[in-house]
Amino acid sequence: MKRLILSSLVLLALLWCVSSNAQAKLRISKATKTCLSCHRYVSPGIVAQWEKSIHAQKTPEMALKEPKLKRCISATKVPVRFKNVVVGCAECHTINPNSHKDTFNHNGFRVHVVVTPKDCAVCHPVEVKQYDKNIMAHAYKNLMKNPVYHNLLATTNGVQEFVHGKLIYKKPDSKTNADSCLYCHGTKVKVKGYKVVETKMGEMKFPILSGWPNSGVGRLNPDGSIGSCTSCHPRHSFSISVARKPYTCAQCHKGPDVPAYKVYMVSKHGNIYASKANKWNFTAVPWVVGKDFTAPTCATCHISLITDGHGHIIAKRTHQMNDRSPWRLFGLIYACPHPKSPDTTIIKNKMGLPLPTELTGQPASRYLISKKEMKIRLNRMENICLACHSHSLVNGHFERLKHTIDTTNAMTLAATKILLEAWQKGAAKGLGQKDSIFNEAIEKMWVEQWLFYANSTRFAAAMSGADYGAFANGRWYMSKNLQQMLDWLNFKLTVDKMNK
Amino acid sequence: MKRLILSSLVLLALLWCVSSNAQAKLRISKATKTCLSCHRYVSPGIVAQWEKSIHAQKTPEMALKEPKLKRCISATKVPVRFKNVVVGCAECHTINPNSHKDTFNHNGFRVHVVVTPKDCAVCHPVEVKQYDKNIMAHAYKNLMKNPVYHNLLATTNGVQEFVHGKLIYKKPDSKTNADSCLYCHGTKVKVKGYKVVETKMGEMKFPILSGWPNSGVGRLNPDGSIGSCTSCHPRHSFSISVARKPYTCAQCHKGPDVPAYKVYMVSKHGNIYASKANKWNFTAVPWVVGKDFTAPTCATCHISLITDGHGHIIAKRTHQMNDRSPWRLFGLIYACPHPKSPDTTIIKNKMGLPLPTELTGQPASRYLISKKEMKIRLNRMENICLACHSHSLVNGHFERLKHTIDTTNAMTLAATKILLEAWQKGAAKGLGQKDSIFNEAIEKMWVEQWLFYANSTRFAAAMSGADYGAFANGRWYMSKNLQQMLDWLNFKLTVDKMNK
Amino acid sequence: MKRLILSSLVLLALLWCVSSNAQAKLRISKATKTCLSCHRYVSPGIVAQWEKSIHAQKTPEMALKEPKLKRCISATKVPVRFKNVVVGCAECHTINPNSHKDTFNHNGFRVHVVVTPKDCAVCHPVEVKQYDKNIMAHAYKNLMKNPVYHNLLATTNGVQEFVHGKLIYKKPDSKTNADSCLYCHGTKVKVKGYKVVETKMGEMKFPILSGWPNSGVGRLNPDGSIGSCTSCHPRHSFSISVARKPYTCAQCHKGPDVPAYKVYMVSKHGNIYASKANKWNFTAVPWVVGKDFTAPTCATCHISLITDGHGHIIAKRTHQMNDRSPWRLFGLIYACPHPKSPDTTIIKNKMGLPLPTELTGQPASRYLISKKEMKIRLNRMENICLACHSHSLVNGHFERLKHTIDTTNAMTLAATKILLEAWQKGAAKGLGQKDSIFNEAIEKMWVEQWLFYANSTRFAAAMSGADYGAFANGRWYMSKNLQQMLDWLNFKLTVDKMNK
Repeated sequence: MKRLILSSLVLLALLWCVSSNAQAKLRISKATKTCLSCHRYVSPGIVAQWEKSIHAQKTPEMALKEPKLKRCISATKVPVRFKNVVVGCAECHTINPNSHKDTFNHNGFRVHVVVTPKDCAVCHPVEVKQYDKNIMAHAYKNLMKNPVYHNLLATTNGVQEFVHGKLIYKKPDSKTNADSCLYCHGTKVKVKGYKVVETKMGEMKFPILSGWPNSGVGRLNPDGSIGSCTSCHPRHSFSISVARKPYTCAQCHKGPDVPAYKVYMVSKHGNIYASKANKWNFTAVPWVVGKDFTAPTCATCHISLITDGHGHIIAKRTHQMNDRSPWRLFGLIYACPHPKSPDTTIIKNKMGLPLPTELTGQPASRYLISKKEMKIRLNRMENICLACHSHSLVNGHFERLKHTIDTTNAMTLAATKILLEAWQKGAAKGLGQKDSIFNEAIEKMWVEQWLFYANSTRFAAAMSGADYGAFANGRWYMSKNLQQMLDWLNFKLTVDKMNK
Repeated sequence: MKRLILSSLVLLALLWCVSSNAQAKLRISKATKTCLSCHRYVSPGIVAQWEKSIHAQKTPEMALKEPKLKRCISATKVPVRFKNVVVGCAECHTINPNSHKDTFNHNGFRVHVVVTPKDCAVCHPVEVKQYDKNIMAHAYKNLMKNPVYHNLLATTNGVQEFVHGKLIYKKPDSKTNADSCLYCHGTKVKVKGYKVVETKMGEMKFPILSGWPNSGVGRLNPDGSIGSCTSCHPRHSFSISVARKPYTCAQCHKGPDVPAYKVYMVSKHGNIYASKANKWNFTAVPWVVGKDFTAPTCATCHISLITDGHGHIIAKRTHQMNDRSPWRLFGLIYACPHPKSPDTTIIKNKMGLPLPTELTGQPASRYLISKKEMKIRLNRMENICLACHSHSLVNGHFERLKHTIDTTNAMTLAATKILLEAWQKGAAKGLGQKDSIFNEAIEKMWVEQWLFYANSTRFAAAMSGADYGAFANGRWYMSKNLQQMLDWLNFKLTVDKMNK
Repeated sequence: MKRLILSSLVLLALLWCVSSNAQAKLRISKATKTCLSCHRYVSPGIVAQWEKSIHAQKTPEMALKEPKLKRCISATKVPVRFKNVVVGCAECHTINPNSHKDTFNHNGFRVHVVVTPKDCAVCHPVEVKQYDKNIMAHAYKNLMKNPVYHNLLATTNGVQEFVHGKLIYKKPDSKTNADSCLYCHGTKVKVKGYKVVETKMGEMKFPILSGWPNSGVGRLNPDGSIGSCTSCHPRHSFSISVARKPYTCAQCHKGPDVPAYKVYMVSKHGNIYASKANKWNFTAVPWVVGKDFTAPTCATCHISLITDGHGHIIAKRTHQMNDRSPWRLFGLIYACPHPKSPDTTIIKNKMGLPLPTELTGQPASRYLISKKEMKIRLNRMENICLACHSHSLVNGHFERLKHTIDTTNAMTLAATKILLEAWQKGAAKGLGQKDSIFNEAIEKMWVEQWLFYANSTRFAAAMSGADYGAFANGRWYMSKNLQQMLDWLNFKLTVDKMNK
């Protein structure tokens, strides 16, 4: 404790020096100063956010001088004009004006609204490159250009009309898609025109963007790039701290289709996080286990650079994210090894469907990572677990997870067999009838078996949040749903017979 | 940072002066001192809470001296006896003894248990007056005296008995109502007798109150007033800080019928709140965007006085709350413009039902605000958005919301048409048969279409928390529910035919 | 405020003295030093956690010198070898080596992985003894050895296969059970072999444990003891602070079967907790109402030692937990008085079923606590309420709860009567047919009536979180479920007739 007090005093003294020193070096570019001169009044919120950010307090040159493990910039050098200015409005919103189709004239500047990974890559190229290999970067295409998944979207978002005793699905429109699936998957952002608007500074012309606002992970940007760094590093603080907290992931990983956050929060890790995180250090780079935090968040296991207190690396930083995950646990009819390519539209199973398994669960292995690669990825993850847990525990944990993958796949198979019987006996129309496999009641029950209940149960096993493997959208519902599917089938067949 | 350190030191010095100064001026009334002399022992929790509150640290006179924008008291003067004492037990619990039917003799004082908006209005008249125009203030009557809504309550809270193959609804009782709908809507609080109780201070007589405890927003109080300030400013700290946090709103706005809190928490705003709010200032008045907070809470957009860092008002404080909201998004069969009067029992649609739209969605326009008023309210809201966001973004956002209002109304219409067919073909009994429209399975499915799924989807659009517009009680469920309603109808018609 | 500043300075001075003093007394045992010499590198996370814990900062002797109300150690003396060393790795992991069947040789030490209540009882015997009377300590047996409840587990966790138009339940396996129900109830932990593992320190032999990892409340340990202290005091910080926060209870009390946490969070108490707890003192012993906290958490009402600011005890510490609860509200078909014995497998109702009530709700009174004991327990709880609330409020609250117990039991009875009719008329197979009462759709609907909806409604009444008594798995669902059960019955009977 004596040490604590002493070090506080030393810190205070240091702060005094450092602060004078740091501010002397800080320089805001002339262009950014011009932006700030108005935006301080017209958008005070974001200016204040930015002022508190690291971007406003550090020039790239300062960042480049830090020791490698502590560095957040991954470029080894940056263009001269950026080197000695902080990263302000103009630096991000006027870069690459020619590749940006959303560039417009704004008080003498060629400005774009939508800052993209390509813009961020000036200072953070390694992260952007890794992220391109992340399946999330391809979330737009993987949904919109995969006919099976696109049909799931269409039968969810499409408005239905009740006409002459029948329900008719209308085509889903782009605004609805943007408000629903594409909010997380990302929209296609395009300039569709310009509009003159009355502002606090008088009349001004702004672009009208379709698919905007959006900060989805696989956004198609007006400069041709994909993804959106602000999905996890919200503008205009671009904080590493926010990205490390589970609330960021929860924006898209909380619903019944992917309840990762909810599972985490009922795990022991989540309990410790919720109870203690107010005393953790979320800005430290590297992130030191035991010192900066005492239980993992999502970022700890899937993304962050983790070291022990002696600077030994436990896990390297990754923005590919799946390189610590052997399996895909969610979003699929059956859990299976991770796909080799983040662009999953290239996959074809034996039936010719763009799915990584057959309808009955066998993996389309040539599109999936090998057993060897799975082991490498598992080892990376286990290495993190071992920073706190024994080999006995870690082995026991992953054995259970593997088993749960098998049993949940088996419960999906039972549901699929009931569905196949329904199609075969004419109680519903499916693949054989060239009809949607998602538009009827029994098909939607089948979807819930894997998209909600089996997913949830696997997450619960993966993160030890058993509620979601038991009664909270877990095994209870998998079991009940099968009974209800079978009852539905029997009722439907009888009713159809009677009405013939 | 130098500035930070300097200002800390200055602050420290100031605190020293101010605190000596302030305490000299503080005076607790004689009556309150008497209360405290016992209650410090018999109810230590609330005394300690109160001691930490502003009420215990400031006299009305001190409050009146503050500059207008900083002032939390809205009276321009207060009765002489209150002026120079802090706001203690006696000040609130012995005021207006004659209008309080719950006044009883307690150790020589005429005390009432239930402190009401009329009591608070001595110092806060503007807020109480605004709140009277808030639809929430009328939540008791709007539920209990509207036959349609009251029947929804009755078929939810009424105990059912299974007799001779039939389910019979019993009338809901007042205790159940108080534990269910009226917990939020507010109860009718009445003295129903007195009881002598053995306390730590010996035997004492206390009133027995029906409808108590309750802090619902539309409570009918024993002094004839409506509402309850402690709904949002919990006794006995009466904190502005608590009211500004989303947990307060969540008490009544979290369930599937009105998942505002849940939607907020999966929005970017909610993420930033959860990640950063521990460093925000929730007590500052006025509330400065960017400085005191960097993402909005419920209060920011709907209630609080917001300024920029230069003292320019972005939004005026309001306790009417709906004056920044053009539409009513929830609690209705179809979303529509806000009603003109907060007492919605006066509304009649063309069918004579007390609903703001027809059963098929057309608005009962004469009871609803005009397009012009809608635009004024929307502008007030947009003005807040613009403190951080561009015109392009804000326009895009509200265009989507308007579209989602239309599509969710359309999905409710499809459900209504199935229900109308069920009534018409005799599969269920409804309006035509003068039966409840909420008591049968298909009717309850219909209710969920609008009360759960369409509401949820609209909230998701309004606050950009797309989970709740997709799989979390959103479009997925709207779509599936329609299929299930139609299946139910077909099964029922066939089964009825067979059993004839 | 002057006082605040002064006391800060005094505190600072004190800290300086105390810290020099305290550290002089601290001694880490030789064995623990040896553990730390490697584990600081191989498991840095837990070492860092432990170093921040009280166990690492206090010897039992220091603990024993504290005044009784402040003491966390409940032993009056401890073995000599523990007295003057802090509670480190070796103290807990090498104690009682002979009774630990999981003891193995590890670098010259006889170590066990699974630390148990028997190990903790060296310093905390009173808590362990109380916990043995807690129904939670018996959660494994009460689930696995009660044929009715075990069948509920089997029909939830057992994988189903669809063969020849029928669904067949397979027996649930132990890994699935461990991942599902037993995660909270506790597993049976046994050594099933040994494995040589490549570690950072070279090859090492570790035990392979079945049922591991697990920290369920009723775990069967390798030393014959039951329970797991780390359920609530997570290793390796063993913090009283974590156990007092609601997130700990939420690990097992959040799902639809037992939504205590969710109900709490929509109550006024939960709101105040969420809004203000960052300024509360969660480590103070005793826990002073009003001073250390201003709204209760789970622990406040059910476990903790609570006093007022003058040292008067409001509630004694208990680890039996149910001794402040007259009723069992959840996990049962009908709510009823608490069982006398925490081992509920001894209960038999008139039908011979191991249930505390008949299928129609009458209590099996000889196994349940008396009215007198119920009153004693209720008084203990009310005493806590009265620290902040009036007699009028407390009486009103518990009257409503009693009423809600009656009405929810009535709603379960209606569901049971429909089920009995289904069994009797052959629409489903149940007790009369010696079939599972949980394996068919209508039976699962019946289970949800009590396990989800009636439970939830009662929790809402008990903790004033009305959302869960209204639309969030509350009365709305109880009411709807009855209609759906009856519809199912009528559909099924007709369909069966047609198919004869």
